[in-house]
Amino acid sequence: MKIGIVGLGRMGGNIARRLMRGGHQCVVWDRNADAVKELAGEGAIPADSLDAMRGLLADPAIWWVMLPAGDPTEQTVAAIGEKAAPGTIVIDGGNTFWKDDIRRAKALAAKGVDYVDVGTSGGVWGLERGFCMMIGGPKAAVDLLDPIFDTLAPGTGSVPRTPNRDPADNEDPRAEKGYIHAGPVGAGHFVKMVHNGIEYGLMQAYAEGFDVLAGRNAAQLPEGERFDFNLADIAEVWRRGSVISSWLLDLTATALAGDHDLSHYSGNVADSGEGRWTIDAAMEQATPVSVLTTALFARYRSRVDHLFGDKLLSAMRYGFGGHIERPE
Amino acid sequence: MKIGIVGLGRMGGNIARRLMRGGHQCVVWDRNADAVKELAGEGAIPADSLDAMRGLLADPAIWWVMLPAGDPTEQTVAAIGEKAAPGTIVIDGGNTFWKDDIRRAKALAAKGVDYVDVGTSGGVWGLERGFCMMIGGPKAAVDLLDPIFDTLAPGTGSVPRTPNRDPADNEDPRAEKGYIHAGPVGAGHFVKMVHNGIEYGLMQAYAEGFDVLAGRNAAQLPEGERFDFNLADIAEVWRRGSVISSWLLDLTATALAGDHDLSHYSGNVADSGEGRWTIDAAMEQATPVSVLTTALFARYRSRVDHLFGDKLLSAMRYGFGGHIERPE
Amino acid sequence: MKIGIVGLGRMGGNIARRLMRGGHQCVVWDRNADAVKELAGEGAIPADSLDAMRGLLADPAIWWVMLPAGDPTEQTVAAIGEKAAPGTIVIDGGNTFWKDDIRRAKALAAKGVDYVDVGTSGGVWGLERGFCMMIGGPKAAVDLLDPIFDTLAPGTGSVPRTPNRDPADNEDPRAEKGYIHAGPVGAGHFVKMVHNGIEYGLMQAYAEGFDVLAGRNAAQLPEGERFDFNLADIAEVWRRGSVISSWLLDLTATALAGDHDLSHYSGNVADSGEGRWTIDAAMEQATPVSVLTTALFARYRSRVDHLFGDKLLSAMRYGFGGHIERPE
Amino acid sequence: MKIGIVGLGRMGGNIARRLMRGGHQCVVWDRNADAVKELAGEGAIPADSLDAMRGLLADPAIWWVMLPAGDPTEQTVAAIGEKAAPGTIVIDGGNTFWKDDIRRAKALAAKGVDYVDVGTSGGVWGLERGFCMMIGGPKAAVDLLDPIFDTLAPGTGSVPRTPNRDPADNEDPRAEKGYIHAGPVGAGHFVKMVHNGIEYGLMQAYAEGFDVLAGRNAAQLPEGERFDFNLADIAEVWRRGSVISSWLLDLTATALAGDHDLSHYSGNVADSGEGRWTIDAAMEQATPVSVLTTALFARYRSRVDHLFGDKLLSAMRYGFGGHIERPE
Repeated sequence: MKIGIVGLGRMGGNIARRLMRGGHQCVVWDRNADAVKELAGEGAIPADSLDAMRGLLADPAIWWVMLPAGDPTEQTVAAIGEKAAPGTIVIDGGNTFWKDDIRRAKALAAKGVDYVDVGTSGGVWGLERGFCMMIGGPKAAVDLLDPIFDTLAPGTGSVPRTPNRDPADNEDPRAEKGYIHAGPVGAGHFVKMVHNGIEYGLMQAYAEGFDVLAGRNAAQLPEGERFDFNLADIAEVWRRGSVISSWLLDLTATALAGDHDLSHYSGNVADSGEGRWTIDAAMEQATPVSVLTTALFARYRSRVDHLFGDKLLSAMRYGFGGHIERPE
Repeated sequence: MKIGIVGLGRMGGNIARRLMRGGHQCVVWDRNADAVKELAGEGAIPADSLDAMRGLLADPAIWWVMLPAGDPTEQTVAAIGEKAAPGTIVIDGGNTFWKDDIRRAKALAAKGVDYVDVGTSGGVWGLERGFCMMIGGPKAAVDLLDPIFDTLAPGTGSVPRTPNRDPADNEDPRAEKGYIHAGPVGAGHFVKMVHNGIEYGLMQAYAEGFDVLAGRNAAQLPEGERFDFNLADIAEVWRRGSVISSWLLDLTATALAGDHDLSHYSGNVADSGEGRWTIDAAMEQATPVSVLTTALFARYRSRVDHLFGDKLLSAMRYGFGGHIERPE
Repeated sequence: MKIGIVGLGRMGGNIARRLMRGGHQCVVWDRNADAVKELAGEGAIPADSLDAMRGLLADPAIWWVMLPAGDPTEQTVAAIGEKAAPGTIVIDGGNTFWKDDIRRAKALAAKGVDYVDVGTSGGVWGLERGFCMMIGGPKAAVDLLDPIFDTLAPGTGSVPRTPNRDPADNEDPRAEKGYIHAGPVGAGHFVKMVHNGIEYGLMQAYAEGFDVLAGRNAAQLPEGERFDFNLADIAEVWRRGSVISSWLLDLTATALAGDHDLSHYSGNVADSGEGRWTIDAAMEQATPVSVLTTALFARYRSRVDHLFGDKLLSAMRYGFGGHIERPE
Repeated sequence: MKIGIVGLGRMGGNIARRLMRGGHQCVVWDRNADAVKELAGEGAIPADSLDAMRGLLADPAIWWVMLPAGDPTEQTVAAIGEKAAPGTIVIDGGNTFWKDDIRRAKALAAKGVDYVDVGTSGGVWGLERGFCMMIGGPKAAVDLLDPIFDTLAPGTGSVPRTPNRDPADNEDPRAEKGYIHAGPVGAGHFVKMVHNGIEYGLMQAYAEGFDVLAGRNAAQLPEGERFDFNLADIAEVWRRGSVISSWLLDLTATALAGDHDLSHYSGNVADSGEGRWTIDAAMEQATPVSVLTTALFARYRSRVDHLFGDKLLSAMRYGFGGHIERPE
């Protein structure tokens, strides 16, 4: 199929590449002219503006917007919608807040334009491994786009089949190839949002476990009760037949193998919107998500030297007990 | 009554003082000779060793040990027990682990010596406000010591009576004076342990609330949605008729009034054994204590720059997304 | 002063009463005619509609809206604003989301109407104890309303003064009487929101501590390590000189004195918007509020028999270990 | 090698089977005579008592104890040790508390007996997948046992190699085959303990995410903001190229494929000692492990209808606000 791709960063560029390898035609544009040039060198049809893209795409066009969530995506979707012919499909493949999807889809529907939200996981590995996609939008549009999704997805590959799956249970056969039509507009980003919420929780679980193994205050422990573990070996052995093997553990093993102390990292851990939105969605349903929240807050805390609240604790301790602060 | 007091730190010294003001006779000793001299100047009978104390106390003697939990208390109780006449009572007023009480009481019982554990709250304010005491031990011993406890306790004072209290409900009339016989040996320190566990939770709740008010990242918020609060005034107003008024809030208001930024504190917050033991006790009963644990862990975290686990999170993020760490 | 009060529920009714006791004139209305009649019997000027109220109030009028947050308040404020003369002041004394305040104030300002948001704490006790008020809005309006706030507030009463407070530090002298002008519109409800967030945390800390004392699984503990505590006495003794004394503890002592097992309660604990909004506000600032969140989630959890997630844990345990679920 | 295996439950039986398939000779015993008979039918040498086993094993013997942690393991290890010839090796493959290992190893060392602790992961799948083993003990003994571990371990199999691993970094080459010599006695069970702590955290992260997707209170959400997800498809698609793919997710997908509502499970989730011990170990090091603790407490909570503390919250709410409990 012919598809326009706006945004050629880490994700957008690889999506274009994987589509071209699959025989699709990609019209590409990015604010960064070098990124456009690079893709053109690999076979893409370059454009130097959104308007230029429009001219290079036949009506009704298919657009894949792969930009940072928030203003960049918002404005681009609006600009595309403004001059779009009926039947146009706009795919937002970024990390958009799902309620923004619903709002935008309503606005575009008035012009006969379909909006499809695609939560895309796979990171820098997607080009090789394929992208795992959670899709929301109208059935007809999603079905029409199937060749695109099929090319981008990992396919069944070497991942063993899940026992018990049975098409008679209304299960989506696309799931085994790495993409699903999760529901109406917003559903794709909702599922991706929860995916990222879980991701934070998983990561924090490993982080805490390795913290205990790292033995921060081992010197204070009784002799004979301290260990000096090789964390790289532990991560490696857990990849092999243990209950906690995972792709995140694979990455952990890789990081530790190359740098036992992780001395390349300071530990200021960023977070993106999905973690927060997951908490919000849970609060709208009065669903407790204690681990997901704890994981998010650990990241906030990692970026601060001392909270004002910590000082308040010290002040109270001084107030009732005369306790003077001591460095650990 | 005549009582020997071992340990004349912040707590022990004030206990001696309050007892003497109430007409009791105190034989005192401490490793720190100056502390002994100071108390002697206020009317106490000074001793220069545990053995000397023994000579100055009539048999069967009453001992109040007010030392740091762990080895100092352990060794002193053992030393007192070694030469104690039957009928002797040893009070441990410190922050001992309640299972240590049970073990020690068993050993002393073999010699006809009674052991009484007293969880003591009141901090540096106890001399004036009186000490809140949670007592564990044999009924006869606790009853015999009543004049001591009655003097140390705050008394009914100006604290309004609790509606509904009814002696017909088997309630302990001493509670309204500020002390209770909580149960057999260990019960006093168990209740005090939980008291401290709660204390951590309360403190952390205030700390987090003031953190939100302090507006750490206010500059990033949209204009018109940032406030510049006077935290001292907020603490003050909450003392007046709000649902969250408390003594800890009083201390908070005092601290903030004198130092709006709490610039005298770095925020390295210590913790003592009771917080951890409360978690342990809860785990023995499979009781979730999420807030108490969270409060304890916030203190651990306050004393560390970056956890190894934080670096691991950064390493994983780099692994799957190529994300480079950025300072906040 | 003359003031119109809309909403005569638990809070609104007592606010009217306290104002009348202080010599103010109250024009009152409520959907519930009986509530209007009752207040009229106590000296209020009754109205049978919002329009009728308008007629009974001189221009520019002062309105106190005391309705449930959300639609009821929204619509009432809008209706008042529609026909309001310039100089009118609308006070929202309910539990409104602070961003709604900012939005409404903007709309009203266009008509020369001032909007003042008042976070009000004090619950059913406010009539006697006075109401603790956190106020947001334009200085002129707040100053003009001072006689109202002064009457409603607890006043300095018997609460001891906070050491260190010094007017030279720019502290608000009203704080000692139980109300503050916290900042521009929204500030009042923001501070009240955080107040409630803290309240949840404090309550949960006590709840967990008493849970440990209640000894849920005591029968499984080794003999000699189980206690049978009188929780009413423990709550009572902690009121007396302990570090954790507070008004919430007073209420706890009252509840336990009358009903040792709290058998009148099932433990389905409600929550209102402020708890959630505090988390939201914290997330906007990337401030960790682990205790406040944990406390909120404990309430969510209290209202559910079994989470779907719990079943998923059981399913995973069966999957890797063949573990069959057993009732505890 | 010839090895005696005590305990033929789910784990012990499969260990014997996998060893026999690898050409080792197994002398087996269990309290359950049927289990012994079954293994004998598969080629094991049956014994009808520990003493009988001793006779069937040459001195110095190798024993693998695979019993529930606590008394059963304690007594069996002691009984073996009592009559053991110098050079005997006792392997504890169960879920023993690591400090018990250290204590036992000291006692056995006095008799020239070596004690090796093996944390074993793999559950019911170990027979086919192989067992992931974390080993603690003296180097000579662990080296001597290598043929045993090599047979039990998964081997390199199809798991891709970790980039960066380099023998020059002192990494243990056995890790890639699925076992490591983690350190001195206790180290094996320590690492396994942390493994299980992480396992709890990972499981809870998935559980919470699926809880949000399950949409507990969807009916209360605005129309157009509710989804009706197929959870089996979501689990399936996440297995395919997403960041959160893992073996636990594979199991989740299997469970959901067969039973979309997990109606076979009630959600009373058990926990074993390792979760608690991980918290203890973390507290000994003052290391915050918020997610691991939260995950453990979620299990405690899952087994209780209402906590006493929940009732206390309701009682306080009634006390300050007159709030009456309502079912959700």
